[in-house]
Amino acid sequence: MNQKLISEGIGSFLLFATVVGSGIMAEQLAGGNVAVALLGNTLATGAMLFVLITMLGPVSGAHFNPVVTLVMRLRGEIGSGPALGYVAAQIVGGILGVWAAHAMFDLPVFELATKERTGTGQWFSEAIATFGLILTILGTVKHRHVWVPPSVAFYIVAAYWFTASTSFANPAITLARSLSDTFAGIAPGDVPAFILAQLAGGLLAHGVAAYLFPGELAQPAD
Amino acid sequence: MNQKLISEGIGSFLLFATVVGSGIMAEQLAGGNVAVALLGNTLATGAMLFVLITMLGPVSGAHFNPVVTLVMRLRGEIGSGPALGYVAAQIVGGILGVWAAHAMFDLPVFELATKERTGTGQWFSEAIATFGLILTILGTVKHRHVWVPPSVAFYIVAAYWFTASTSFANPAITLARSLSDTFAGIAPGDVPAFILAQLAGGLLAHGVAAYLFPGELAQPAD
Amino acid sequence: MNQKLISEGIGSFLLFATVVGSGIMAEQLAGGNVAVALLGNTLATGAMLFVLITMLGPVSGAHFNPVVTLVMRLRGEIGSGPALGYVAAQIVGGILGVWAAHAMFDLPVFELATKERTGTGQWFSEAIATFGLILTILGTVKHRHVWVPPSVAFYIVAAYWFTASTSFANPAITLARSLSDTFAGIAPGDVPAFILAQLAGGLLAHGVAAYLFPGELAQPAD
Amino acid sequence: MNQKLISEGIGSFLLFATVVGSGIMAEQLAGGNVAVALLGNTLATGAMLFVLITMLGPVSGAHFNPVVTLVMRLRGEIGSGPALGYVAAQIVGGILGVWAAHAMFDLPVFELATKERTGTGQWFSEAIATFGLILTILGTVKHRHVWVPPSVAFYIVAAYWFTASTSFANPAITLARSLSDTFAGIAPGDVPAFILAQLAGGLLAHGVAAYLFPGELAQPAD
Repeated sequence: MNQKLISEGIGSFLLFATVVGSGIMAEQLAGGNVAVALLGNTLATGAMLFVLITMLGPVSGAHFNPVVTLVMRLRGEIGSGPALGYVAAQIVGGILGVWAAHAMFDLPVFELATKERTGTGQWFSEAIATFGLILTILGTVKHRHVWVPPSVAFYIVAAYWFTASTSFANPAITLARSLSDTFAGIAPGDVPAFILAQLAGGLLAHGVAAYLFPGELAQPAD
Repeated sequence: MNQKLISEGIGSFLLFATVVGSGIMAEQLAGGNVAVALLGNTLATGAMLFVLITMLGPVSGAHFNPVVTLVMRLRGEIGSGPALGYVAAQIVGGILGVWAAHAMFDLPVFELATKERTGTGQWFSEAIATFGLILTILGTVKHRHVWVPPSVAFYIVAAYWFTASTSFANPAITLARSLSDTFAGIAPGDVPAFILAQLAGGLLAHGVAAYLFPGELAQPAD
Repeated sequence: MNQKLISEGIGSFLLFATVVGSGIMAEQLAGGNVAVALLGNTLATGAMLFVLITMLGPVSGAHFNPVVTLVMRLRGEIGSGPALGYVAAQIVGGILGVWAAHAMFDLPVFELATKERTGTGQWFSEAIATFGLILTILGTVKHRHVWVPPSVAFYIVAAYWFTASTSFANPAITLARSLSDTFAGIAPGDVPAFILAQLAGGLLAHGVAAYLFPGELAQPAD
Repeated sequence: MNQKLISEGIGSFLLFATVVGSGIMAEQLAGGNVAVALLGNTLATGAMLFVLITMLGPVSGAHFNPVVTLVMRLRGEIGSGPALGYVAAQIVGGILGVWAAHAMFDLPVFELATKERTGTGQWFSEAIATFGLILTILGTVKHRHVWVPPSVAFYIVAAYWFTASTSFANPAITLARSLSDTFAGIAPGDVPAFILAQLAGGLLAHGVAAYLFPGELAQPAD
């Protein structure tokens, strides 16, 4: 179990450091062209997701996301105790990753975000983004296991662009990004509604997947 | 059968939401540099296509495109009734996807496009774009089944750039994009000629494929 | 044999139409930022190469390049007659592809390029570009056959950026691009030196590969 | 053995020529938008890494990096003599690659870099970048051998963006880049601290990997 928690923690550390760090780099270099900044942010995030799922999937299933862990719990792929440990490791590792990104870029380690992200369009975006993410994971884990890493990575690449919220789709990263007053930040007060929308989208996908992809997953959580 | 129609509908929903949503996002952020906007639009569309074909190919064949369904009907891979159901699911799911994109970006849900896309260069572009798409699908489904998702995704990535129309290559998406007055829109009056050109290109590819890749497909429609 | 020639012709048609067409699109949209234009040109070319090698490799080996055909002839993988047919199909199909790109973008079909590409830096670039391309093909065909399409595609993606000539690396495409007065053009008078440099780089790779990757190729020319 | 050294030398030649050459190209074309330049530099580097690891992995293991060779020595996958030969081939081949890039772009072959890269943020960046690189290599070589080339390539793609130093993560390339007064350069006086940070990160990953991925590697150094 310890190996699995370390795997979830290190993966979340590198993933969240990538999301926040590449956002800082992109914004610093893009000279005000936000689309160019988002291209760099997207490329880095998708690439790192591919790497982490490939490398750590065989160890812990490479959740890095409480909604994924929740759905795996609902499907009986993981027990309640380990699931709580996973979520804790994701949050702790992820926040350390955000702080590491700040340290790399010589920013104050501890910040609170000020960027507002609120309104029905944003919440609808998060629900759709998380719906698609969970559906992608359950569908590819079941039918085409070897293609899980590029599928999840490419899904997030697309979701950064087709949703109005640039697709957080992950309560742990939403929390961690509230601690970064940078390109990727989200004001703390806007976090709860994002997480609710993510849970709604994830649970909807859980139900749809039971109909579209019936039966057991091929392997537990990977 | 119901599962297959739901699969075509959800896939078209997510695909068309991606095409339109990423176009809106890209145009809003690109500060007038249309090439940068098209890069974001291309990346999102290609990535989502890879995901959807990987995830839903084993369920419904992942057509998401009436020309694909027509060619599969001509090859006897699907019956006439199911083919009509597929086309209906593509159109309904796809239009809902366009409307979802509008809702995410706080735009009016119902719009009519005003962007003109007409002339021989545009029509020739659509014919070539659809010719290449159908040839890609038939050639890779037959010879290298496992590479269908990246091949179709990368084909569309290339076609967004090498054709003057940015490659619609799909009658359902052409129809749906006439309901979006955004980056990806097409004025309703320009739709019929686009669809005719797409059918011409698709049927030509159907014939060329019979010569280049003779014999049965390995699996029905996937 | 006819199928193989049609395969080389159609592949060169789509490849060269992509190189030239995406160059036109990129330059028209990039607002003078040539790096952004080259990003679009690169993405389209790499994506199309992946598709064409995946789809047509099993039919004709997917050469689309006289230097590749020459090296395969030197290795005894193809006879002299078929090799000449391949080269003719590449040139004819490729020029038609350039003309199709012009027609799609409403440009005059027949043009002569005026862009100068000459000097030792350019020629050294072409020699290195072609050396790397042939080495990539021979190494991956031998050791990791399934990875030939992404390897060749990614090689050209890199070579568009790390060589000063943006890597033509192909005598047929050099010839065809002399017929396009666009982003991808090359003045006719600069063509012979490019082709000589390409042959030098290709033959060097042929020798190095015999040492680095000794023995027969796994399959003829694919 | 000679084949392996030639493989390491040619691979480092092409890799370092790509890093430096694409940096020159990108900076010349990007019109001052550094984020666009970094996109081109990233795309070329990641693409070339994929190609070289795919092509040369079966010959020499495709290290191209003294930290990789050191860790493989510590794991007993390679002897001390061959390891020294590897490092020498990486440095010699790599410097020749940098000089070839200069020659292609008509720059003076021999230069010393003047770009300062120093400070705790930079050193912390190099430590994290190299930690992630070595962890990626050891984890994927062990569990998912066929995915090593895209994993390493995508890791570097992400690391170019999420670290403040754009991720050198390689003592040989750090040394070679001190000989290039271009986009990719690093002032010679800043090299030693970078290399120390890289060694620290690499050795930490060596320890973590022993815990996370216990047991022998599937194949020696590939």
